[in-house]
Amino acid sequence: MTAGFNSTDSFKKLKNAAENIKQFHLRQLFVENPNRAEQLSLKTEHFYFDCSRQLVTKETIALLVKLANEMELKSKIDAMFNGEKINATEGRSVLHAALRDANPRPVIKEVLDHVKTFSKEILSGTKTGVTGKKFKNIVSIGIGGSCLGPEYLATALRPYAQPGMNLIFIANVDGADFTEKTAGLDTADTLIIIVSKTFTTAETMKNAATAKAWLLKGLNNHPEAIKKHFVAVSTAADKVSAFGIDPANMFGFWDWVGGRFSSSSAVGALPLALYLGYDNFAQILQGANWLDRHFQSSPFENNLPILSALLDIWNINFLGYETRALLPYAQGLAKLPAHTQQVEMESNGKSVDISGQPLYFPTGEIVFGEPGTNGQHSFYQLIHQGTQIIPCDFIGFVKPQYEIGVNSATEVNHHLELMTNFLAQPDALAFGKEDSNKAKNFPGNRPSSSLLLDKLTPFSAGLLLAWTEHRATVKGFIWGINSFDQFGVELGKVLGVEQRRLMLEFNATGILNTQGLNASTEQLLKLILIDNLNP
Amino acid sequence: MTAGFNSTDSFKKLKNAAENIKQFHLRQLFVENPNRAEQLSLKTEHFYFDCSRQLVTKETIALLVKLANEMELKSKIDAMFNGEKINATEGRSVLHAALRDANPRPVIKEVLDHVKTFSKEILSGTKTGVTGKKFKNIVSIGIGGSCLGPEYLATALRPYAQPGMNLIFIANVDGADFTEKTAGLDTADTLIIIVSKTFTTAETMKNAATAKAWLLKGLNNHPEAIKKHFVAVSTAADKVSAFGIDPANMFGFWDWVGGRFSSSSAVGALPLALYLGYDNFAQILQGANWLDRHFQSSPFENNLPILSALLDIWNINFLGYETRALLPYAQGLAKLPAHTQQVEMESNGKSVDISGQPLYFPTGEIVFGEPGTNGQHSFYQLIHQGTQIIPCDFIGFVKPQYEIGVNSATEVNHHLELMTNFLAQPDALAFGKEDSNKAKNFPGNRPSSSLLLDKLTPFSAGLLLAWTEHRATVKGFIWGINSFDQFGVELGKVLGVEQRRLMLEFNATGILNTQGLNASTEQLLKLILIDNLNP
Repeated sequence: MTAGFNSTDSFKKLKNAAENIKQFHLRQLFVENPNRAEQLSLKTEHFYFDCSRQLVTKETIALLVKLANEMELKSKIDAMFNGEKINATEGRSVLHAALRDANPRPVIKEVLDHVKTFSKEILSGTKTGVTGKKFKNIVSIGIGGSCLGPEYLATALRPYAQPGMNLIFIANVDGADFTEKTAGLDTADTLIIIVSKTFTTAETMKNAATAKAWLLKGLNNHPEAIKKHFVAVSTAADKVSAFGIDPANMFGFWDWVGGRFSSSSAVGALPLALYLGYDNFAQILQGANWLDRHFQSSPFENNLPILSALLDIWNINFLGYETRALLPYAQGLAKLPAHTQQVEMESNGKSVDISGQPLYFPTGEIVFGEPGTNGQHSFYQLIHQGTQIIPCDFIGFVKPQYEIGVNSATEVNHHLELMTNFLAQPDALAFGKEDSNKAKNFPGNRPSSSLLLDKLTPFSAGLLLAWTEHRATVKGFIWGINSFDQFGVELGKVLGVEQRRLMLEFNATGILNTQGLNASTEQLLKLILIDNLNP
Repeated sequence: MTAGFNSTDSFKKLKNAAENIKQFHLRQLFVENPNRAEQLSLKTEHFYFDCSRQLVTKETIALLVKLANEMELKSKIDAMFNGEKINATEGRSVLHAALRDANPRPVIKEVLDHVKTFSKEILSGTKTGVTGKKFKNIVSIGIGGSCLGPEYLATALRPYAQPGMNLIFIANVDGADFTEKTAGLDTADTLIIIVSKTFTTAETMKNAATAKAWLLKGLNNHPEAIKKHFVAVSTAADKVSAFGIDPANMFGFWDWVGGRFSSSSAVGALPLALYLGYDNFAQILQGANWLDRHFQSSPFENNLPILSALLDIWNINFLGYETRALLPYAQGLAKLPAHTQQVEMESNGKSVDISGQPLYFPTGEIVFGEPGTNGQHSFYQLIHQGTQIIPCDFIGFVKPQYEIGVNSATEVNHHLELMTNFLAQPDALAFGKEDSNKAKNFPGNRPSSSLLLDKLTPFSAGLLLAWTEHRATVKGFIWGINSFDQFGVELGKVLGVEQRRLMLEFNATGILNTQGLNASTEQLLKLILIDNLNP
């Protein structure tokens, strides 16, 4: 049994270090140590990571590494890669990284080969819908982990889409989501993927049923409509068959792949291979695998996911910052904040350690963000001058996805214009600018990291995916929590079922039985079902 | 001169009240006071607001009202509506509410009439592009306040779009935004709106120049292409003319309309009237005006924007919660969190009071959110079981925008399925559920409010717009800060100009002069311009 996070020797030393660093300003730290930028940055062939604007010194990093060692980080990482059942509350292994092994185990290879064959048949037009039209619209119905990771990747990789292919994600049970996203689609060239591990997720099954009705109507109840236009990513073969999906078109995954970590499984593979082509999806896996190997083999202080996790812990547990802004200077990364929000907040929003003991220190951070430069014209005011400190992650690329605009002696192109901001904002935050007009004073000393990559490609998008996953996982290991369960989503489901029962009873009898409801819920339910609001 | 916020008599009493409330659980508060739901809810013909799940009692509300009085809230609101120059640092009035007066002053009416005439000409096909094709694609180029509010409204009101009309917002200077959003558009039927008060916003002018080149290319340099396909929302007539836009197609606004409060001005009016028709836009103004009058005339404790602002202050300053989740149970409100994020964090992310004195209490909250039920499968884990407390705002509707699915004794339609969640989540948060398995224990006592409206229409979307604006404003008034300037965005711009100068010099001479840069920025800039990352 390891010591608890907050009773380690390093914890106390880090508390002192935090008190100490409060006496310094980043301006001063940069002046006093001319080698600071070099010492606090990390360069590999695929990224450059600069954390010199974090409120740390080399000694802080060393202490954080020591803390990680005291919490047995290395053996926990090894246990994960070795397939030990580290998701203890559910008795499961955590092997999403195995999905992108260069030589995947047979069970994985089989599914990847299935995706490869199937996507080639669809993209070549060998496999068509019931009218013989080539598929061009892929509708992926799934929610949470069955949507956010693949949607981040699809949004990031639009320039790599196969000609004419269109990928649409439907998640929300609000009928507006299905209605607006399928408006104008031709059922004849639409392939629908239902993504649900258990094939019982309420929202997904509701949208699946609506999709079925929509498709059957569009295809005049063609007897093969479901079989040819629906496929599933699921582990529940019986339910998939009962829905009418051809068992040959079911793509499996396993209980050792958690929803929010499932982008590298068929959950991501199927929609992305259909949209980008299998080879581009394989590049995503390669990028993720590169980061996996970097994660496994690099010393902690030179290890991107570990170093960024250690800085998060420093900011959360020692400097007391509760939030983190993720600010990608690339429009293609518009969905990375939402995906990261899930990975971080679902994994580490826990109040008990892995053995069920209550924790007396904060875990998890609230992650939010928008692509730069958009956020600069919105919430950055608070980041620069607010009373709260929000550590920021800037992400940028050397090369753009699209070469737009002119680069000359009198103007810069769109990409360099974007990068002027990527360069300027961290400096404005770190160093500030004194002004005797206090409304225009910038205190500075606001921490950030800058991650620079070559170009947003399938490979680098995969690298960022794995970074996001491991960064959250490392924090969980160090805090001593289980980052792989999500019992916190259960109670709402249970209470929702009870609400549904009352509604069904009302539909059947016209009587609303509110016994047992609190007065607030009773009133809301009455307004929705009976009274309405209008005068 | 009023007393400072934290030296008022009420402030101290509220601090005590906060200590006191910590001894109670919401379960207990509901049991002890059977009238709690009734006492802590607010019903008008247009909304029902229930704050009984906030960690307050009637007495807390009374104290918060007293605090507002001590901070002279009423006279500050009156001063705003009366046009006094309450944006003191910039010497400006704050009159966005006047834009939706039932009888607007002549200068406003003139612009609205201009929008009305122009939008009718476009929608009827009286005014066409240079080839005679009827316009069907409206591209609005603007960033921050010139985008987020109108985009929220456009997304919320898709069912009200005029047949065949398409509205696209381009904000980011990343060339991907322009390239991907204009891909496949026909220049012949595309009308482009450039939205920039000064007509100098870097991102917007870059995108405007690219749009000009794109349009001229598509229309074979037709001599009237710019005149007929470009319009402007701006106050800078000379610059608009210099760009080639017909002065008759410039729609003005005024220095008493701040960017983030400009949705009711031509900034919102023009794109939205072209997309939804002028009458629907007028309905948005009516909904906002209804809320304006409710705001001006209702007692504080029965006043939606004031009551919600008081609860925010309670949560931020007395209970110590730094963030707020905005959780609309309507896919149409997908962009409301981003708009609210701007309104709140740009308005109230300030560290000095209106006279420039430093503040010793937190202002501003970090607002984030996603539409329900999507967020439930993502970050809600932390909201339910995390170590941090995040006050939540739930928003729901009695009626859906689209009637999808079957309502019977055995199934509920999409909308009721959605509403089971709207009802269940606040109860799960407030009351929790004890479990001896601590990983499955829900502590509860997590605060939320529920706002129920009839249906998402232009009217209610306008009401929500005004609610969002006034809620932020009220907090600023009570904190004693200026919610209407945004000097915090300036330093990044200045440093960005310097980066651009270095890049232009490099373009001209091939020499990168990094003198004066810190070592971190120097290295990043070198990697971007010269060295690149790849091996």
